Amino acid sequence: MLTLTSIELVGIAAAFCTTFAFIPQMMMGLRTEILNSLSLSTYTLLAAGKVSWFSYGTLIGSLPICLSNGVSLAFVAIILGCKLSLRRA
Amino acid sequence: MLTLTSIELVGIAAAFCTTFAFIPQMMMGLRTEILNSLSLSTYTLLAAGKVSWFSYGTLIGSLPICLSNGVSLAFVAIILGCKLSLRRA
Repeated sequence: MLTLTSIELVGIAAAFCTTFAFIPQMMMGLRTEILNSLSLSTYTLLAAGKVSWFSYGTLIGSLPICLSNGVSLAFVAIILGCKLSLRRA
Repeated sequence: MLTLTSIELVGIAAAFCTTFAFIPQMMMGLRTEILNSLSLSTYTLLAAGKVSWFSYGTLIGSLPICLSNGVSLAFVAIILGCKLSLRRA
C-alpha cells in the first residue's frame, strides 16, 4: 500500500517532468533557429495557461504551483520569443 | 477584492489553456506531417509528466487533475506518435 510520501513523490516527479520538459525544445530552438513545425497557437496558449496557473497559485498561496509554472513559463516564453523572431526574420 | 469564485475561474482558465493548447500542434502534425523542429525529448517528458499527474490525481482522488491531464495526455501521445512515425519513415 502506498504511503503519503510515495504519493507525494509521484506528484513531485510529475511536476519535475512537466516543468523541465520545455528545456530540450528551448535548447533546440536556440541552437538550430528552426522552429517551422512548432505551432504558434500551442505556445501562445501554453504561455497564457502558465500565466493563469501562476496567478492561481499566487491567489491560493501555493508555492509549488507558482514555482513550477513560473519556471516553465520562462522556458515557454523563450520558445515563443524564438518562434516569433524567426517568423519575422 | 476577488471572491473564491473569481479565483476558481482563474484556475479553470489555466486548466483550459494548458489542456487544449496541444490541439493546434496535433492538428498541424496530422495535416502537414512535418514535425522536424519538434523536440522528441520535450514530448517524451511531457507524456511522462501527464501520466504521472494522472496517477497522482487518481491517488489523491482529484477528478480535475485526472481529467485535465488525461485529456492532454491523449493529445501529447498523438503528437509523440506522429513524431516517432515520421522519424522512422
